[in-house]
Amino acid sequence: MQGIHGTKVDGADSIVISGGYLDDEDYGDVIIYTGAGGNDPATKKQIAHQSVDHPNNAGLITSELAGYPIRVTRKEKGAFRYDGLFSVTEHWIDVGRDGFQIVRYRLEKLPDDHPEEGPATKSEPAREPSYASTTVTRRIRDSAAARKVKDWHNHACQICGESIGIDGDRLYSEGAHIRPLGRPHVGPDETSNILCLCPNHHVQFDKGGITVGTDLVVLDRSTGKALGRLRTHPAHRIDIAHFDYVQRHVYPAQV
Amino acid sequence: MQGIHGTKVDGADSIVISGGYLDDEDYGDVIIYTGAGGNDPATKKQIAHQSVDHPNNAGLITSELAGYPIRVTRKEKGAFRYDGLFSVTEHWIDVGRDGFQIVRYRLEKLPDDHPEEGPATKSEPAREPSYASTTVTRRIRDSAAARKVKDWHNHACQICGESIGIDGDRLYSEGAHIRPLGRPHVGPDETSNILCLCPNHHVQFDKGGITVGTDLVVLDRSTGKALGRLRTHPAHRIDIAHFDYVQRHVYPAQV
Repeated sequence: MQGIHGTKVDGADSIVISGGYLDDEDYGDVIIYTGAGGNDPATKKQIAHQSVDHPNNAGLITSELAGYPIRVTRKEKGAFRYDGLFSVTEHWIDVGRDGFQIVRYRLEKLPDDHPEEGPATKSEPAREPSYASTTVTRRIRDSAAARKVKDWHNHACQICGESIGIDGDRLYSEGAHIRPLGRPHVGPDETSNILCLCPNHHVQFDKGGITVGTDLVVLDRSTGKALGRLRTHPAHRIDIAHFDYVQRHVYPAQV
Repeated sequence: MQGIHGTKVDGADSIVISGGYLDDEDYGDVIIYTGAGGNDPATKKQIAHQSVDHPNNAGLITSELAGYPIRVTRKEKGAFRYDGLFSVTEHWIDVGRDGFQIVRYRLEKLPDDHPEEGPATKSEPAREPSYASTTVTRRIRDSAAARKVKDWHNHACQICGESIGIDGDRLYSEGAHIRPLGRPHVGPDETSNILCLCPNHHVQFDKGGITVGTDLVVLDRSTGKALGRLRTHPAHRIDIAHFDYVQRHVYPAQV
């Protein structure tokens, strides 16, 4: 029984947790799941790198971006048990305990009344599998620390310098955590771990389009090209150890 | 008893629904609420325009952007009843039934276990009122229709032409509904009502920074300046009546 069912185009719709990966962490309603590939079924050891381009791994990322629910089945003592729907909230690249690169995902339990899939409409015939009305939620933690960082930078993005004008003469920006909050990264919700970014650069930073070095140089991850240096503010003391953590455990500088 | 308690800087933390505004709509867990100002208490009629710059109205918008919970009290038959916490999910400008411009808000009930306010931490002393760890959620409906629009444009923003690169050689964009979904606008989830936008222009379009005319010209709402024409694709047939609706009932072309 394969761990992940799905492909890059259609998205993944189900996973099986069978204890096949040493690096999986199961907290019940939160699952840290390891992608497919490079695993020796006999020893359960990682013997090669995993890639986000592996069809099943890419399928889970498609589901993350499109908000497709994932059916989770757990294998325990040889028996399979269906445990309901989860959403993929994050993915990242880490080095597993066997020393190879692995793709990891954070899955969170959806409420029991969450629709399995959206209804197909006449004007928009559903693809197989059909998910006509999924909703993606982007959670932005707007803590006192995030608001302080946005104030210091007056909503100017630390990567591009742009600030987003909305109505009533307001500016809009987002507080982006360098080391992600929550399991397994447990980054702190403090000004030293928060950047003021525009929504475009926030998405790119969170989803592995760009990364920032300990020298504050912003890199395009697909080309490795430097895009400039992070804008700073004297009051905003960033802990560069968080950038080091990201390059080791979230997104390495180059794919 | 004042309807909205709060200011632009601190955000609003509570409202009272007392039937003071003819344009309020109360669906229980969803409330369409009218802003402050321009209302004659004697006749309950609107006698002047409302503005997003009115301190109380600006306070509710601050709470919308920062994710602050709003305590809702309903007045019924002379008695006040506390009805729990709501979040402000949208605001817009409409013409009320008395012919004056009004500011409106959509509020949605939060779960009963939602924290009243975030805990203050030692390193980040709380302001009054203190909301140390609020979370803003941006919901993006990624329906089959939205995915079709994003495919046609290959994730290039219809306003700026940019597409956002994330890892694994993927492009990211968002499906933005022209006429908003849900009450009270009930825009359709169809390709004719969806634009392919980058996150920056999606936020600006949803929060009143820009508006689009029926001639497809994109306007900066604060200056009234034209920013160019919307990029189109031959297969993507936009219903321009939705732009007309937005200019009449969501964001007028000029503030």
